[in-house]
Amino acid sequence: MQTAGRIVKPAFCRFIAIIETIMSRTKIYEGKAKIIYATEDSEIVIADFKDDATAFNALKRGTIGGKGKINCQISQVLFQYLEQCGIATHLIDCPSLNQMRVKKVKILPLEVVVRNIAAGSLCQQTGLPLGTVLAQPLVEFYYKNDALGDPLLTHDRLLLLKLATTEQIDQLQKLAKKCDRALCEFFSNCNLTLVDFKLEFGTDNNGQLLLADEISPDTCRLWDNLESDPQNRVMDKDRFRQDLGKVENAYEQVLERVLAQSNFRSK
Amino acid sequence: MQTAGRIVKPAFCRFIAIIETIMSRTKIYEGKAKIIYATEDSEIVIADFKDDATAFNALKRGTIGGKGKINCQISQVLFQYLEQCGIATHLIDCPSLNQMRVKKVKILPLEVVVRNIAAGSLCQQTGLPLGTVLAQPLVEFYYKNDALGDPLLTHDRLLLLKLATTEQIDQLQKLAKKCDRALCEFFSNCNLTLVDFKLEFGTDNNGQLLLADEISPDTCRLWDNLESDPQNRVMDKDRFRQDLGKVENAYEQVLERVLAQSNFRSK
Repeated sequence: MQTAGRIVKPAFCRFIAIIETIMSRTKIYEGKAKIIYATEDSEIVIADFKDDATAFNALKRGTIGGKGKINCQISQVLFQYLEQCGIATHLIDCPSLNQMRVKKVKILPLEVVVRNIAAGSLCQQTGLPLGTVLAQPLVEFYYKNDALGDPLLTHDRLLLLKLATTEQIDQLQKLAKKCDRALCEFFSNCNLTLVDFKLEFGTDNNGQLLLADEISPDTCRLWDNLESDPQNRVMDKDRFRQDLGKVENAYEQVLERVLAQSNFRSK
Repeated sequence: MQTAGRIVKPAFCRFIAIIETIMSRTKIYEGKAKIIYATEDSEIVIADFKDDATAFNALKRGTIGGKGKINCQISQVLFQYLEQCGIATHLIDCPSLNQMRVKKVKILPLEVVVRNIAAGSLCQQTGLPLGTVLAQPLVEFYYKNDALGDPLLTHDRLLLLKLATTEQIDQLQKLAKKCDRALCEFFSNCNLTLVDFKLEFGTDNNGQLLLADEISPDTCRLWDNLESDPQNRVMDKDRFRQDLGKVENAYEQVLERVLAQSNFRSK
């Protein structure tokens, strides 16, 4: 009995502690795809991944069933992988399939976009045909500002708006290119082509720059190398944006391949 | 009679020659604000300034009475002034009030915009309040492409689209800043503030970069230093864009002050 008691008691305490934590959790911020909760530790927050999907600056809204859990798991694998590649991220661990414990950071109001192949707004704004392979990765900065429609920023506008210093821009460009090289290789082993992706960075209490937010089919364009049809190959949020159907299937397929590659790597 | 004949005959011949030139003139290109005609000399064209006014990528159309003559004269004075400041332009001379003989150039598909004070799309895209004085002039490049809506270009997009080489970008930035310094001084002496302006450049047969197109209230934002009211001070195409009225008056007033300053300088 005493032995059994010793086993039951800590488990029960842990259960109560979790319930207390959930009950006392304070919502710090709710974005389009995630809710951020405070924890007992002021330097740690919980990112709760939602199933809500938005596109075109939230003009299009919907739900992708299971997206929260899928994107959280994909992000966890990719953040762990990037840490192994020498890139500091905000990830601590995942207490549940759609929740990520992360270091609390002050997010820079920038979307750092890396493009390997022309798609999306790059095509619309430059006339480059969809699918044009870029001679070298294009790193771009967008102002993370919904009211302004997340506009493209030139180097001089970044400085003018004091969104980053010249040193930070250099550092972000280098980090973005390093992520690109690592992620291209990872996804290639998943039979996926990394067309482009968006990164967000934040600074922790010590001023260290950490890769934050998420890396998922919501933030990457991924094309299936096993499909040549221009619509069937799309494995990312473009299926939702362009009403291509089978959105959940594509997200699940990406998770499956990412997990398989992660398991293969850890062997 | 013979003396009179000597006077009449060359004048008559000149008249016939002009008529013949007009009759034989071939339209090379018609843009929103100008028609370009060929001349007997393959390296010289005539730019004919129109009264047509367009804004918001030609979604708004109208006519500003006398604009062709006004803009041609203002441009002539400013090109001559910039030549004196060491900037090579396409201007040769003006055979009539709304016509400019210019060196034939291949226009770069770029709008080089210099901003001293935040206005227009800079405010819309960055949230900077109208009238914010910039710590230093901001030189920006836009893709001269109506179908794409003349989008802003980053340095990397300029290179990606092969619109300019790194050397050309440097050269254009230096030229644009030199024009800005000279024009700010000129307009200041006209009691006008040069808020921002757009330049176009072309290359001649020898590959030399020449300042081209026009410099006028169609291409500059000019604020009257004698007016503090935010609407009354506007002396440029914003009066047409924003339906502020008295458009012709503003253009005439700018011409008057520019001519007076030109006359003052030539004394």
